[in-house]
Amino acid sequence: MKALDAFLEQQIAAFEPEIREHVAYSMDTGGKRIRPSLIFFSGWNKNSEVDEKLVRLAAVVETIHLATLVHDDIMDEAEIRRNRATVAKKYNNATAVLLGDALFSHAVYLATQFPTTEVCRDIAVSMRQVCTGEILQTMQRGDPNLDMETYFRVIDLKTAELFRVSCHLGARLAGFSDEYVKAAGSFGRHLGIAYQIYDDMTDLFGSQEKIGKTLGTDIATGKPTMPLILMRDRLPAEESQALRDALAGKTEADVPYWLAKLREMGIFEEVRQAIFDEIAKGRAAIQSFEDNPSAAHLRTISELLWNQVDAL
Amino acid sequence: MKALDAFLEQQIAAFEPEIREHVAYSMDTGGKRIRPSLIFFSGWNKNSEVDEKLVRLAAVVETIHLATLVHDDIMDEAEIRRNRATVAKKYNNATAVLLGDALFSHAVYLATQFPTTEVCRDIAVSMRQVCTGEILQTMQRGDPNLDMETYFRVIDLKTAELFRVSCHLGARLAGFSDEYVKAAGSFGRHLGIAYQIYDDMTDLFGSQEKIGKTLGTDIATGKPTMPLILMRDRLPAEESQALRDALAGKTEADVPYWLAKLREMGIFEEVRQAIFDEIAKGRAAIQSFEDNPSAAHLRTISELLWNQVDAL
Repeated sequence: MKALDAFLEQQIAAFEPEIREHVAYSMDTGGKRIRPSLIFFSGWNKNSEVDEKLVRLAAVVETIHLATLVHDDIMDEAEIRRNRATVAKKYNNATAVLLGDALFSHAVYLATQFPTTEVCRDIAVSMRQVCTGEILQTMQRGDPNLDMETYFRVIDLKTAELFRVSCHLGARLAGFSDEYVKAAGSFGRHLGIAYQIYDDMTDLFGSQEKIGKTLGTDIATGKPTMPLILMRDRLPAEESQALRDALAGKTEADVPYWLAKLREMGIFEEVRQAIFDEIAKGRAAIQSFEDNPSAAHLRTISELLWNQVDAL
Repeated sequence: MKALDAFLEQQIAAFEPEIREHVAYSMDTGGKRIRPSLIFFSGWNKNSEVDEKLVRLAAVVETIHLATLVHDDIMDEAEIRRNRATVAKKYNNATAVLLGDALFSHAVYLATQFPTTEVCRDIAVSMRQVCTGEILQTMQRGDPNLDMETYFRVIDLKTAELFRVSCHLGARLAGFSDEYVKAAGSFGRHLGIAYQIYDDMTDLFGSQEKIGKTLGTDIATGKPTMPLILMRDRLPAEESQALRDALAGKTEADVPYWLAKLREMGIFEEVRQAIFDEIAKGRAAIQSFEDNPSAAHLRTISELLWNQVDAL
């Protein structure tokens, strides 16, 4: 991960001088670097040497992720991310749109530094899918009738795809078999779905202090996530309609009431189980590759998420 | 050009079904297709067959151009482009940001369909430069002291670079010599600079009816272009300060007054000469390649611009 940080730091100099300050600001997010971890672990070989190819790939995927965050914060009108002003807030929306574009472009450039066009092609397709997922999510804001199938479709595109391609290409660059490359991709996809359900869940069940964000914003801003969809479809007609009205912005949402209701109805346990199920599917995909040193490392990542969900 | 339209039309189906309508809307701009023309002409061979490689490259560059337009219209808060609602206006800003991203991604994907990474790499670098140029322009909005050097730097990045890469790669894909590839790129760059100066000029000297846009918006919105920089630096101190105040938004701009002043001072002729000079530089770059069928076609394009400027 140190090698990645050094590599990303170096990239700042690749941008035109006038915008290096902006690029540096957008890169310095103190993020969790989940996608790079997936790349390093899915490409893990017996020797523990830092593999330059994997570092480059990690920089590509992380830069794309940072670009989507810069654009996301414009759309959500977010002012704070990880205790700092967002790019949109610190500069302005116009700069944030363009800086995100410049980051995307540079990520693509780095992806063209591999001998074949495969990495760049896979990355481009994933980027498009991530954007499509975000567009769908934007279109669905305030739709109180969003169904579970569509919810899964969106998180598959906006989150799971980048997790999938990280694992897929990490394993590919390490020279593993086609079967393992596919299996690692499948692991990444299910882990991504699990991660997004977990992330959505922390908006409704987390400890406000620990997570560092206001609870229940998804209710207030009309974003139906798994817990809310489950609750909505199980409440008696009148109450279900009240929740729909809150999600559609027709009435002001009584956030504490709905948070209590979620706990009371046992939705929490059910969502947790859904996450565990996804993690299990991911593990099943790589189960038969025990002789591959990478598989054990991917399993470890899945345990980290499992424990985080368990501790919630 | 018909082959390009058919190819772009086909691409709509490559996007996820939910966003095809949006993609189709953003592609249907009735634009002038200058960059595709540059590609077809710089890659022109003796046989007049439609070259699939050139069509694909034209689709890449035109899609990138369309993506930048979608993002530009957000920043300029433009509501109308070519007599239709902009994407940002028809849908919303969030969708426009993401749709632009999806278009970028798809352009990159198409660029990865060439046998080597060269096209994709050059395109990625150009994309980053275009974004950087736009960021600089955004940062300089309302700066009444912008100098000519910086003005040229911005148009070089935001406009000339995509013209340059169109000619460079068009000639490259046609298999022309390294010398001609470089010369064609240089032609494209100078033509791009000339084109942008011309485009900026029509805001101040055009016929409102013919161009179909309000004159003088660059004065009102504080965007110093070549004519305004020339006028500002040549006016007596007091008047120069009045123009600066108008550009900085400190006073309301008396647009008709400044438009009359520009004509009175002969700035019009001077800017026209600057455009002709750039076109001449471009022509000089390809002058020694008379035996290449492409060079004559590029010269023809430069004549079209020359005549447009001449007719202004």
